[in-house]
Amino acid sequence: MSRFFSARYQTLTPYTPGEQPQDMKYVKLNTNESPFPPSRKAVEAAAEAAERLRLYSDPECRALTARFCAVFGTEPDEVIFSNGSDEVLNYAFMAFCDEAHGAVFPNITYGFYPVFAELNRVPYTELPLRYDFTVDVDAYYGVHKTIFLANPNAPTGIALRREEIERILRGNPESVVVVDEAYVDFGAESCLPLTKQYDNLLVVQTFSKSRSMAGARLGFGVGNPELIRDLNTIRYSTNPYNVNSMTMAAGIGVLSDEEYTRANCRAIEENRAFTVDAMRRMGFAIPDSLANFIFACHATVDGETIYRELKARGVLVRHFSKPAICDYNRITIGTREQMQALLDTLRDILEERT
Amino acid sequence: MSRFFSARYQTLTPYTPGEQPQDMKYVKLNTNESPFPPSRKAVEAAAEAAERLRLYSDPECRALTARFCAVFGTEPDEVIFSNGSDEVLNYAFMAFCDEAHGAVFPNITYGFYPVFAELNRVPYTELPLRYDFTVDVDAYYGVHKTIFLANPNAPTGIALRREEIERILRGNPESVVVVDEAYVDFGAESCLPLTKQYDNLLVVQTFSKSRSMAGARLGFGVGNPELIRDLNTIRYSTNPYNVNSMTMAAGIGVLSDEEYTRANCRAIEENRAFTVDAMRRMGFAIPDSLANFIFACHATVDGETIYRELKARGVLVRHFSKPAICDYNRITIGTREQMQALLDTLRDILEERT
Repeated sequence: MSRFFSARYQTLTPYTPGEQPQDMKYVKLNTNESPFPPSRKAVEAAAEAAERLRLYSDPECRALTARFCAVFGTEPDEVIFSNGSDEVLNYAFMAFCDEAHGAVFPNITYGFYPVFAELNRVPYTELPLRYDFTVDVDAYYGVHKTIFLANPNAPTGIALRREEIERILRGNPESVVVVDEAYVDFGAESCLPLTKQYDNLLVVQTFSKSRSMAGARLGFGVGNPELIRDLNTIRYSTNPYNVNSMTMAAGIGVLSDEEYTRANCRAIEENRAFTVDAMRRMGFAIPDSLANFIFACHATVDGETIYRELKARGVLVRHFSKPAICDYNRITIGTREQMQALLDTLRDILEERT
Repeated sequence: MSRFFSARYQTLTPYTPGEQPQDMKYVKLNTNESPFPPSRKAVEAAAEAAERLRLYSDPECRALTARFCAVFGTEPDEVIFSNGSDEVLNYAFMAFCDEAHGAVFPNITYGFYPVFAELNRVPYTELPLRYDFTVDVDAYYGVHKTIFLANPNAPTGIALRREEIERILRGNPESVVVVDEAYVDFGAESCLPLTKQYDNLLVVQTFSKSRSMAGARLGFGVGNPELIRDLNTIRYSTNPYNVNSMTMAAGIGVLSDEEYTRANCRAIEENRAFTVDAMRRMGFAIPDSLANFIFACHATVDGETIYRELKARGVLVRHFSKPAICDYNRITIGTREQMQALLDTLRDILEERT
C-alpha cells in the first residue's frame, strides 16, 4: 500500500479470480468457461470490427441493443450492457444500495458480492443457506435491503424456481431484487419475463458462459426503464464507452446464432447428467445442478486433497477454502472427453486412497 | 430516476460523450479519433484472439505487460491496464482522493474530472487557467490535494513542459500528481521518465489516439509499484477481467509496430501546422497545440454558429457551451483531405457572413 492510499479502501479485500495457469496444459474445469468455441458469426463479426477500431465504440450500443431486443423481446430502454456482468452488478450496488439501504445475499454465493458491498461501503447481511445448500426463500421476505441472488447459485449450482423469486419480489416491494442469472441457460428458469411486471426486478446475465464469450467481456442487465436509467447514470459517470466495438460486434454475431447456443447448452446438460451419475457412483455427494458446473464432496477424501491431486494430474477444478464448503470442489462441465478425463483421474485418485 | 436510486448519486450529472451521429456521413472531427486505420498487426492479432473468446482474458495482462515493458522500458509492477484511460483515471480518484484529501484540476480541462470527483464524493477545486488558457504552474504548489493535469490540456491543446510538471511534483510531495497524457504523442513531452524518480507521479495514457484504437478501449497508468498496487486493489475489487482478450492482443500488435504509430503522429503534426496556418489567416485565434486537435475562435463569427454551420455542411467539430470557452470549437486533426474539406467549408461560411 502506498502512503497515498485512501483510508476508505485500506481494509478492502479484493476478489480472487480463478487460476489462469500458464505453466502446463490443464483440463481446465475451474472457471466455468464453455468448452465450445464462440459462434463463427461472433468471430467473424469481431474480426471485421477490428478493422474500424480507430473510431470510438457507440456508447449507446444501438446496433447490439436492436439485435438483443429482437431476440429477447425487450425494449431498448429496458437493457444495459456492461464490460462483463460484474460491472453491471457493481453498478447495481452503487445505484440501489447505500448506508441507509444495505444489501443482503446468501452466506454461500458468488464471492464478488461482499467485495462490491465493501468497495461501495454498503452494509450487508449474509443469510445462511439451509443445510442442503438451498436458499431459504422465506428468510428473504421484508428484508428492507437490496437483495442479490445468483440463480442458479454459485458455487452450488442449485436454482430457485421462478415462482420462488416472484414470492421474494412480492415480499420486498420497497427493495430492488437483483437476480444474477450468469448460469441460467443450462436448465434453470429465467426471471426475464418478470421484468415487465415488477419494477423492483433487475435480471443480470452474461455472454461468458452459454455464449462462449468469456474473453470478450459482455454482460447485461434487464429491468424496468427507470432502473436502467439509474444504472446508466452510473455508467455515464464512470465509463460511457465501457463496451468495445469488437465485443459489441461479437455480441450481435452470437445473437444471430441462437441455434448454436442452444445446442451447446443441451450438450452441457447431457454431459452434466453423465458426470453427476458417474461421480455419485464413486461416492460423491452432488446437489442437483442446473448450471454448467457441479459442486462435489467425496464421502471419504477431503476437498482440498481432491483439488490438489487432480491438479497434479493435470485437471484443474476450483476449491474454496471457506470452512462451510471446503469439503467441496466446483467442477465446470466441459466436453464429454474432458468429463471422461476427469472421471478417469478421479478413479485413479480414489483407488490410491481407498 | 427510480424510487430505488441511492441518495448518494441523485445529483450526479454524468459525462456527455461527443456525438456519434448515425444519420449521415460527416467529416468527423469531433472526438479526437485518429484518421488512420489501426496497425495491421493490431487488426490481425485481434481477429486471431476472437477465435479463443471462450476463455477468460488474463486478469494479469501478462503478455501485454511484457510487450509494453519492452517498448516503454518499465517494469511489470509499474504498469496497470484499463478498459480505456477513463477507467484508470476513475481508479485514481478512488484510490488517492477522499473527504480528507480532495482533488484539484484546472477550471478548463477534461470534462470527466469533475464527474469522477462527484461520483466518488471527493471535494474538488478548479484552479483558473490564465487569460491565455495556459496552466498557472505556481498555483499548484503545496495544494495538499490530488492533482489532475491533462497534458496537453483538453480542449486547448496547450502543453506544459516536463520541467514544469516536475516543479509541481516537487511542490506536492504529500499528494499524488496524475498526469493525463492522452494527447502526448503529437509533440508534447511525456512525464513517463519521471515515474522512476517521483513516488507521487501517476502517468496515464491511452491507445485511443496515437494508436488508432479508440474502439478497442485500452488505457494504462505508469507509476511507482506502490501506486500501481493501490490501483490494482481497486481494479480487483471492481472488475478484474476489465481488459478483454481481443483488445489485449490488439495492444500487443500495435506495440510491435511503433514505426507506424510514429509515422501517423508525424502526419498529424504536419496536418496540424497546415491547418493552424490556414485558419489563422482566415481570422481564427488558435493557441499553439501539441495535441491531435486545435482550439479555435473566430474574430467575428461566434463559436456556436461556426459549429452549427459546419455541421449543416457535413463537418462535425466539438463545441462546449461552458461560457469561458463557448466562442471556441475543438477541431480534431485528421487527414490532409479532411483538413482541406474543413478549410473549404470554413471559407464558404465566412464568405457568407463577412
